[in-house]
Amino acid sequence: MTNPQMPYPRPIATVDLVIVALTEAGLEVLLTRRDIEPYAGEWALPGGWIHIDKDIDLEAAACRVLREKTGVETPYLEQLETFGSAGRDPRGWSISVSYVSLIATNQMRLPAAEHRTDVAWTAVTDDTVAVPLSFDHAKIVKSALTRLRNKVEYSTLPVHLLPSGFTLTELQAVYERILGRRIDKSAFRKRIAEVDFVEPVFGEMRRASNRPAQIYRVKAGRSTILFDRTL
Amino acid sequence: MTNPQMPYPRPIATVDLVIVALTEAGLEVLLTRRDIEPYAGEWALPGGWIHIDKDIDLEAAACRVLREKTGVETPYLEQLETFGSAGRDPRGWSISVSYVSLIATNQMRLPAAEHRTDVAWTAVTDDTVAVPLSFDHAKIVKSALTRLRNKVEYSTLPVHLLPSGFTLTELQAVYERILGRRIDKSAFRKRIAEVDFVEPVFGEMRRASNRPAQIYRVKAGRSTILFDRTL
Repeated sequence: MTNPQMPYPRPIATVDLVIVALTEAGLEVLLTRRDIEPYAGEWALPGGWIHIDKDIDLEAAACRVLREKTGVETPYLEQLETFGSAGRDPRGWSISVSYVSLIATNQMRLPAAEHRTDVAWTAVTDDTVAVPLSFDHAKIVKSALTRLRNKVEYSTLPVHLLPSGFTLTELQAVYERILGRRIDKSAFRKRIAEVDFVEPVFGEMRRASNRPAQIYRVKAGRSTILFDRTL
Repeated sequence: MTNPQMPYPRPIATVDLVIVALTEAGLEVLLTRRDIEPYAGEWALPGGWIHIDKDIDLEAAACRVLREKTGVETPYLEQLETFGSAGRDPRGWSISVSYVSLIATNQMRLPAAEHRTDVAWTAVTDDTVAVPLSFDHAKIVKSALTRLRNKVEYSTLPVHLLPSGFTLTELQAVYERILGRRIDKSAFRKRIAEVDFVEPVFGEMRRASNRPAQIYRVKAGRSTILFDRTL
């Protein structure tokens, strides 16, 4: 394999996705059951080799994997971290460029057909999932959830976990559930107003327990704003 | 090249380093002149192929490149972003795992021997360097400087650009020069005290213009702390 044009044997190169949603039960991560060795029959993050004949770039590879596994086309996708070492894959030196994807609750339905591998949403507890994961995927999940929690402290990121219309109470609940702590309601609303990333949808209300609540949506182009301080 | 064990041709895999120092002239980035094709004779970031027979993991590969190009062993090294596409390298689909390294001014001397490629510190203006760069390295430099500036707003990162002993005035000057704006002195000192990451070195003073200034150093294990709000 060594020649002047290719001086070194090349590592395996893959993309792996931590696809996150938030349900009544809490944060959930999409897992697939591997149908080939290594780790055949075991759970892993959705991922795959980079197809150098098909994928134009890394993000295209990540989008292809996301589409193949979930049918979802354009969610929030962020490059997380790249893991690479001699030992992380029994087939040899391997690189995984990992991505975090956030999916709204109403997009969690998986397309039934065309998927022969098992796919399942799995609950997250203490930054890990309940089943053992192949390769170093538990480490990738931990890295993704740490990034998510840190970023939630100072960004509008959680809106990607909500359907397109939501009440401010629902928005606050998403922040609180990811952070694992209560947030003062008036401080939260003040911050939301300062950052100016949501707007009321005219005439749309949700009937809540006592009185109707205004429905909001994200302002155009303002779904991914960093705050200038933590919540 | 296709067989059951190796179902896809693999992309080129490299690490590239944005090695940053701060001098009287401002931020500088270390560049090397390429001695092989493609882009022979042109400037590029220090980098190289991952050596799967020698590098235990990505960080080891980055440290090896850093050592080979600068002789420096253990500076601040942080994974930045991974660039990968069909078009970024004329030799074919290629991945660059990029790192940012911060070097103290007194470590900028390059070891004279053993380097046949030219190596030079190059001034940064408007998040770019004055010479054209090979591949997409201008984009990597821009990404590194954006990361650096953002992180300076809410972290202790700039101490890595200073020698081990420094005055608070020198520390503030580093923040100001990277941010490109003045910081209120009393607010800055209050933040530094809150974050509690530096301590006076007993008996060490620097003779300044009017009166001697206390020398400080970073507290053990506190060189990389995130603030809870921006400066």
